[in-house]
Amino acid sequence: MLKFEDYIGIATQAIESIKYPARPGRLYEPIAYTMSLGGKRLRPVLTLMACDAFSGSCKAAVDAAVGIELYHNFTLLHDDVMDKADMRRGKPTVHVKWNDNVAILSGDAMLTMASQYIARTDNEHIKAVTEAFNATAMGVYEGQQYDMDFEARNDVSEDEYIEMIRLKTSVLIGGACKIGALIGNASKEDADSLYNFGEYLGLAFQLQDDWLDVYGNPETFGKEIGGDIMNNKKTFMLINAIAKATGDDALELRRWLMAKAPDKSSKVAAVKAIYDKLGIDKLAENAIQKYNDMALASIEKVNISEEAKQSFREFANMLLHRDK
Amino acid sequence: MLKFEDYIGIATQAIESIKYPARPGRLYEPIAYTMSLGGKRLRPVLTLMACDAFSGSCKAAVDAAVGIELYHNFTLLHDDVMDKADMRRGKPTVHVKWNDNVAILSGDAMLTMASQYIARTDNEHIKAVTEAFNATAMGVYEGQQYDMDFEARNDVSEDEYIEMIRLKTSVLIGGACKIGALIGNASKEDADSLYNFGEYLGLAFQLQDDWLDVYGNPETFGKEIGGDIMNNKKTFMLINAIAKATGDDALELRRWLMAKAPDKSSKVAAVKAIYDKLGIDKLAENAIQKYNDMALASIEKVNISEEAKQSFREFANMLLHRDK
Repeated sequence: MLKFEDYIGIATQAIESIKYPARPGRLYEPIAYTMSLGGKRLRPVLTLMACDAFSGSCKAAVDAAVGIELYHNFTLLHDDVMDKADMRRGKPTVHVKWNDNVAILSGDAMLTMASQYIARTDNEHIKAVTEAFNATAMGVYEGQQYDMDFEARNDVSEDEYIEMIRLKTSVLIGGACKIGALIGNASKEDADSLYNFGEYLGLAFQLQDDWLDVYGNPETFGKEIGGDIMNNKKTFMLINAIAKATGDDALELRRWLMAKAPDKSSKVAAVKAIYDKLGIDKLAENAIQKYNDMALASIEKVNISEEAKQSFREFANMLLHRDK
Repeated sequence: MLKFEDYIGIATQAIESIKYPARPGRLYEPIAYTMSLGGKRLRPVLTLMACDAFSGSCKAAVDAAVGIELYHNFTLLHDDVMDKADMRRGKPTVHVKWNDNVAILSGDAMLTMASQYIARTDNEHIKAVTEAFNATAMGVYEGQQYDMDFEARNDVSEDEYIEMIRLKTSVLIGGACKIGALIGNASKEDADSLYNFGEYLGLAFQLQDDWLDVYGNPETFGKEIGGDIMNNKKTFMLINAIAKATGDDALELRRWLMAKAPDKSSKVAAVKAIYDKLGIDKLAENAIQKYNDMALASIEKVNISEEAKQSFREFANMLLHRDK
């Protein structure tokens, strides 16, 4: 197994080597722009690690890793149109820099490019890998649809929320692991266990994202603290607060949710105080720990070397002790 | 070889047998709705015919035929968002019946569903078929981007226009032929010759569409006559008229192109008169004939039975003697 930095280096180099046709410019420039904005490259690293863990080399999985990262960035591109998000990674989003039509069409092309990279898989594994990739993609769309459906609802349960983030975020992290494992010649069982590792890790990761929005360190957290609170985003935190708040707390929470153009720091401080009082922070921390434990238990089931298992444990540790 | 009606029947039954998950409803209902609106099912019929011509059965290509038709309808769904088109096949478009976000996301899911059907291809052919499908899809996006780029230009040449419709329309008709041929175990050469048949036929088909908008029989043409003229759509007809008109004709054409809210029948009649005077009708008819001849010549090169060749010739004949 290599170091994380090495896998990141391999993924980054492969992503920077993607060839984009010169014309039509308004189709390919937005794709190159999106891929140049960076990101943590977590998913391709997992694909490379998984392949390496089973076969002793990550080489055969490099194209699939690029396909996974193209797919992930395609979902961000189209999500930003749907969410009318203006900025992504500190830069204007494609639909702002160009327009909605360019964002829709270049996103479509990006999805097909992702399939092209996935389809470079060797003949022996292409069928299983393509199936895993497409099933993953369908899960992601379902998650995004539930996320949009939840915006209009005030009675989303914790279970529904977990299922939504499982689909929207976790299946792709699981899929990245599974695809690397399949290319590395893993058995179906091992590939599924590594998928479970990724899926549980994805749940812990997303719940931590929800927690960081409230309790993150403003100096190291990349985004502004309290963004979810200001947008009334139905995170794990808010859903549980709505479910648990009674009496004056419930009234106050509702007042802040209904407030038109509230002062930002007042709203964030007030909602955070309610979270503190209701113990939502502990609830989130317990859930993060639970899914982290489940991820680690899944790794134990996989038939790979102790060294490889340790790499995945360290990956999980690194991810869940980030402060941004 | 079967009769066209039989291939249409097989394609229709397979399309009607697509299983859509029940939830989330706003993801899958728009896909089922789009596929239920009908259409000529030309592309899946070509896939089935191509497979049958080489292997004596169309059975192995049924899933791929469904994938091709899903893909075609996905492009219509997203094009309708980009073009802000309200109606399609006499029914409200998805972005009107639901909204833009639903249309974007269900279109994405439809594209992945198309890939899933394509990926059901047997192990021996999946790699070549997937490659042909993805390359086709990239061509279609390029064509749509050029089409949008051309809206802002008044100097589009006939060559540029032909290249645009080749990408936007013809590569998918060629791809439908090629994919069926590959599944039917055709040689690469034969599959490429059948691709050429489809591509040339697609050019003739689109040019005929341009012609029908002006010279079609209002009683049998499905769409309103003159829609392209009213929208100043840069068709083969208008591009050549702009290039050829001089003196008073050029002035009058420009006046109609600039007219704000002109009377419909006056504008259509006036532009048509200019087309007649400049011989644009003949120009289009000659181009249609040229590409039809090229399609028929491509069929001659394919190593299939005389009966199968005759089926493709009749398909071309039927397509180019339609009045709608």
